[in-house]
Amino acid sequence: MHTRTVFVISDGTGITAETFGTALMTQFDIKPRIVRIPFVDTVDKAHQAVRQINHTGEVEGKKPIVFSTLVNQEVVTVIADHCKGLLMDMFGTFVQPLEEELGMKSQHRVGRFSDISQSKEYLDRMEAINYTLAHDDGQTNHDLTGADVVLVGVSRSGKTPTSLYLAMQFGLKVANYPLIPEDFERKKLPPALEPIKKKLFGLTIDPVRLSTIRNERRPNSRYASLENCRSEVHEAEAMMRRAGVSWLSTTTKSIEEISTTILQEVLPHRLGMGMHG
Amino acid sequence: MHTRTVFVISDGTGITAETFGTALMTQFDIKPRIVRIPFVDTVDKAHQAVRQINHTGEVEGKKPIVFSTLVNQEVVTVIADHCKGLLMDMFGTFVQPLEEELGMKSQHRVGRFSDISQSKEYLDRMEAINYTLAHDDGQTNHDLTGADVVLVGVSRSGKTPTSLYLAMQFGLKVANYPLIPEDFERKKLPPALEPIKKKLFGLTIDPVRLSTIRNERRPNSRYASLENCRSEVHEAEAMMRRAGVSWLSTTTKSIEEISTTILQEVLPHRLGMGMHG
Repeated sequence: MHTRTVFVISDGTGITAETFGTALMTQFDIKPRIVRIPFVDTVDKAHQAVRQINHTGEVEGKKPIVFSTLVNQEVVTVIADHCKGLLMDMFGTFVQPLEEELGMKSQHRVGRFSDISQSKEYLDRMEAINYTLAHDDGQTNHDLTGADVVLVGVSRSGKTPTSLYLAMQFGLKVANYPLIPEDFERKKLPPALEPIKKKLFGLTIDPVRLSTIRNERRPNSRYASLENCRSEVHEAEAMMRRAGVSWLSTTTKSIEEISTTILQEVLPHRLGMGMHG
Repeated sequence: MHTRTVFVISDGTGITAETFGTALMTQFDIKPRIVRIPFVDTVDKAHQAVRQINHTGEVEGKKPIVFSTLVNQEVVTVIADHCKGLLMDMFGTFVQPLEEELGMKSQHRVGRFSDISQSKEYLDRMEAINYTLAHDDGQTNHDLTGADVVLVGVSRSGKTPTSLYLAMQFGLKVANYPLIPEDFERKKLPPALEPIKKKLFGLTIDPVRLSTIRNERRPNSRYASLENCRSEVHEAEAMMRRAGVSWLSTTTKSIEEISTTILQEVLPHRLGMGMHG
């Protein structure tokens, strides 16, 4: 059972605030219930949210925790004046010192917070997703030079989720290529990858974990056997070492961590590094 | 040219903090350069980050803005004592009042912040991505009852990116189904969708925008013509209205907004609503 309710109120989607609030709460040894209240962009909706929060507080007999990213001053005032929770104003807390340092007022534009709209950046992200889907699992060699990154690794090493995350989060065009037994026999990377060697990044995985994952898909197959997994991983790592391709093990890493390491290795300027004149 | 550098320092990936910091900065009429410094989990790396920040401040003649989500107290101390930027401690600022309210100390676990690790939740997310990819664009009717949501709409109305976002962000299994001229002739939803009507959600789009998008893919085709787009959108909306399927227009909405609205309509308990006993 949960021991405390955490509300996330936003005049946008509140997704960023929820991710942030959830991460903060993992620092405490409790299991909170997280409730996100999105699109709170009128005084009416603010009063409704306040009622929900205060009611929860009464029923549970504990002060709800409230993370807010609200831009509209009237909405903020309703929440601040009437909400009986512990209010953490993620917007106001940081906007005030920023206004002082930058010597300007913030624009208090509702909906600009936490959501990316139909900008150039947004359209690029859509295009990146389409590119990445079309180039999943070595489906096509067409326009491989258009890729920002090309992932390689044995089947089920984590290439597809990582590719999609890089496309979705960072707008990167990512192709991914499986390394298969034929490649190991030739002892060479797939020929299509030779011209784009600088864009390659390898994913590897612990053979025991790989065998578990493959067994879910094809139980008791040779494909999933520990012996075959050991051999494929060994061959793939040897091949990447020979070809001078950077790689990491995905075994104990999240997609976010894997993706960040790939950016550091292949596209450091996407972290903002090295663009300073 | 950028007028200010914003650093994001984290002992994890810093992705959440970057999204948050970027959203805050859009409230100001400046174009900052964002630099993310991930994995700052030792005193050495903290000193390195401080040097980078202070150097940038000297070169630009302006105080860099620094968002940090650092858990390790030694690392925090190095940054707080030596960094000449405007420090916004996103961790400490909120952890202190939380500690008081909850009556317990935070665990200061590095790496727990902002990253989701190899938990049950994480594996569910991977499975959701696989399900969603396999059920993209009506590829298969197999196990449609296993879906959390099934999106319908004309080709290029935004079904695929939305499905993938729902899978990646919320671990939802999402199938999506195109509505095609054959369906419009029969004046009925695809038969495979009848048994899962409660899981359906429709996406529609402004015909002019749809025509633009389709023209990028197949220039000057009948498929992309404004006349055909108008007719398809009209038919699709009429069909959803008849079938009692909720829908929204994706024309001016971000994936985050579309996804949040879908959760509100189809899976409100995924926002945390209605689970309270």
